[in-house]
Amino acid sequence: MGEWLKGTPAGGVTAGANIFDFPLPVATLDADALSHNLTTMAGYCASHGVLFAPHGKTTMSPEIVRRQLGHGAWAITAATAWQAAVLASFGVERIILANQVVDRGSLQVLRNLPDVELYCLVDSPEALRLVEPLKPRVLVELGLPGGRTGLRDDAAALALAAEVEAGPATLAGVAAFEGIVAAPTLAGNLELVDGLLHRMAALAAQLPVDDPIVTVGGSAYFDRVVAVLGGGPWRVVLRSGCYVTHDVGAYDELSPFGAAGRGSLRLRDALHVWAPVLSRPEPGLALAGLGRRDVSADAGLPVPRAAARVTALNDQHAYLSIPAGSDLRVGDIIRFGISHPCTTFDKWRVIPVVAADGTVRDLVHTYF
Amino acid sequence: MGEWLKGTPAGGVTAGANIFDFPLPVATLDADALSHNLTTMAGYCASHGVLFAPHGKTTMSPEIVRRQLGHGAWAITAATAWQAAVLASFGVERIILANQVVDRGSLQVLRNLPDVELYCLVDSPEALRLVEPLKPRVLVELGLPGGRTGLRDDAAALALAAEVEAGPATLAGVAAFEGIVAAPTLAGNLELVDGLLHRMAALAAQLPVDDPIVTVGGSAYFDRVVAVLGGGPWRVVLRSGCYVTHDVGAYDELSPFGAAGRGSLRLRDALHVWAPVLSRPEPGLALAGLGRRDVSADAGLPVPRAAARVTALNDQHAYLSIPAGSDLRVGDIIRFGISHPCTTFDKWRVIPVVAADGTVRDLVHTYF
Repeated sequence: MGEWLKGTPAGGVTAGANIFDFPLPVATLDADALSHNLTTMAGYCASHGVLFAPHGKTTMSPEIVRRQLGHGAWAITAATAWQAAVLASFGVERIILANQVVDRGSLQVLRNLPDVELYCLVDSPEALRLVEPLKPRVLVELGLPGGRTGLRDDAAALALAAEVEAGPATLAGVAAFEGIVAAPTLAGNLELVDGLLHRMAALAAQLPVDDPIVTVGGSAYFDRVVAVLGGGPWRVVLRSGCYVTHDVGAYDELSPFGAAGRGSLRLRDALHVWAPVLSRPEPGLALAGLGRRDVSADAGLPVPRAAARVTALNDQHAYLSIPAGSDLRVGDIIRFGISHPCTTFDKWRVIPVVAADGTVRDLVHTYF
Repeated sequence: MGEWLKGTPAGGVTAGANIFDFPLPVATLDADALSHNLTTMAGYCASHGVLFAPHGKTTMSPEIVRRQLGHGAWAITAATAWQAAVLASFGVERIILANQVVDRGSLQVLRNLPDVELYCLVDSPEALRLVEPLKPRVLVELGLPGGRTGLRDDAAALALAAEVEAGPATLAGVAAFEGIVAAPTLAGNLELVDGLLHRMAALAAQLPVDDPIVTVGGSAYFDRVVAVLGGGPWRVVLRSGCYVTHDVGAYDELSPFGAAGRGSLRLRDALHVWAPVLSRPEPGLALAGLGRRDVSADAGLPVPRAAARVTALNDQHAYLSIPAGSDLRVGDIIRFGISHPCTTFDKWRVIPVVAADGTVRDLVHTYF
C-alpha cells in the first residue's frame, strides 16, 4: 500500500516531482523555513546554556527527529510509552516520557525498550508504585491548580521525591508543563508561568540530587523558562515541539519568536496544506477541498493565502467566506497556513519537503 | 515499522491477545455490534428497495469495505480522487466520488484508475469542463442555500445536465448531501431535508436519462430519503458511512436508528477508545490518557463508561470531571464511547475487533 499515501501521486514520488502535480489536498514542509527553525532553536538553546529535548509527539517523524538530534538535541520527548518505543526505533537513545505511565501494556513496552536512557514523570505515590519496578529515572511533576497533571502542593511533591529516593527508581529532578495556562490575558499567562517556574526552582533546590534536571517549556513560553531558571544549580531541559514548523495561528501569537514575539528571533511557518477551490455555489461562498481530515482545527481554523477566510470545516471541505467581487475560480489552488502543528502532522503519513517553487526535495514520514 | 502501530503491542498481535494487555490508549471495534450494524443497514436497504453505496471515507478500511460489499453494497462512496484510488485498490469496482474533482493531480489519479465504474459530481460548468475529458458518469449536484456544494437553482441544474448530455461524459442522475443541514430544531432539519429531496425528485423526473440515479443520504436522515424518494421512477442510492459503527453522540441523537430514533431498528455503538486514569491531581478532577490524537472531538467529546464526564481534550490527555467521593483510581481503565466515527477512525492505522471480554478476534486496518 506504500503507493497509496495521501498527498503523494499514485506510483510514488519521482525525482523532480512538483506538488502541483500531486492529487490535492497535499501537506508540505517549506524546506528553508524548516531548516531555519531547526537552526534557530538549536542556536538559542546552545547560547543560553539550556538543554533541548524537542517533543517528538509533534511530528513522530524519523527524518525530523534525526535532524533535531543532528542539531544537538540532548534527548527527545514522548507523551506515551508507545511513542517512546517508536522514537527508540528511530535511533533515539535518551527519552523524556513527559507523562505518567500506569497501564500494564505501556509498562511492558517500556520494559522492552532497547538501551535507552529513560526519564518518566510521577505525580502521585500510586503512579510511582506502578512505574518504579522498571527502575527509571524519575522526575516529580508539578502542576497548577485547575491545570492538568502534576502536584499542586509543594510539600507533597517533596514527600513524593523522598519516596522515589527510597525505592528502586532514581530521582532525577522536577518536571512541569506550562503551555496550557489559560488566563484571560497574555500578561496573566506569563504570571502563572513564572509562578510555576519559581515553584520548580524551589523544589529542585531541595532535592537530594546532584545536578538535577528541571524540565519544562513548550513552544509558547520557553523564554520565561530561560529567564527564570537559566543559570541555576541544575540542568534546564526545554521540551518545545511546535517550534519546528511554527504556524500562523496559536503559536505565532504566543511564541516568544512569533510575529508579536517577546524575543528578537523569529520562527517561520513551515507547514502548509494546499487545496483547490471545488465550488462557488452562491455569492460570498467558496468551498475548498480540505477538511478536518487534512488540517488542525482545535486551535484555530486554517488561514488561506488568498482574499478569503475559512469559516468552518467539514471532514473533507472548507467553507471560505469571499468578497462579493472575488475572482477566485473553481480549480484555483490555495495554500493554507495552519494553527497547531501537532494536529496537522497526525493527518498525514508522508509530507513532501518542498522548495519555494513546489519542487519536492525530500519526504518526511510520520508514525502516529 | 509494521510492529509500531499505535494501539497494538510491540511485536504485533498474537492469537488470543486481549486488549487489556495492549499499551493504552487503544481503539476497538465491538465484533457483535459491528456485525449487527452491517446486517441491519443492508437489510433495511434491501427491504426498502434502495441501493447502498456506504461512504468509504468513514473507515478507509479494506476489511470493513469488503464486509460492506459482502452485505450487498451496490457501490462504495469516496470523497476525493485519492480515496477512490485506495478503494479501487481494495477491490471496489463501482465508486461514487461524491465531490467535485478539479485539480490536475486528482484528475490524473482518476485517469489511472483500473476498471472502475466511476460516478462524479458536478455543480458548475467549470467543474464539468475539468472532469468531462475523463468521460465519467456524471451526477448533477443540488445544494441548499447557505449549505455546502451543489446548485441552489433548479433551472441552472437542469441547464448543467443538458451541458453534460451535450459533452463527452454520461449523464447519470442527481446527487445531494442532506447531512449538514443545521436548523435550530430536528423538525426544522427534517423540513429542510424533505425540501431538498423533493427538488431532487423534480430534477430527476426532467432528466433525459432512463433509470436515473438519485443519490443522497448520510447516516442522519436516510429514513427521509426512503420516505420521499422511495418507489419513484429512479434508482435511489444511499451513501451512509457512520452507520457502520454508529456512536453515542451526534449520530445516536440524529439517526433514525439511534437511541431516540424515528425508525423501529436500532444501531449499536461499535467504536470505543480505552484509556487509563493517569492522575487525580485535585478534588473533582482526573486525567485520562487519551486526547485529540486518539478520538474525535468535532461533534462532541468522548463519553466515559464511568461516573465521570469529559470536559476537555488536549493532544494526549482528557480532563474528567468526577464526583467529590469518586473511587476512580490511578491505573483504572475506562472505556470511552465516541461522537463521530469518521474522525476517530482516522486516528488509528489498526483497530482490533474484539469480543465482549476484550479478546481480539480480528484486526481492521485503515488507509488515511
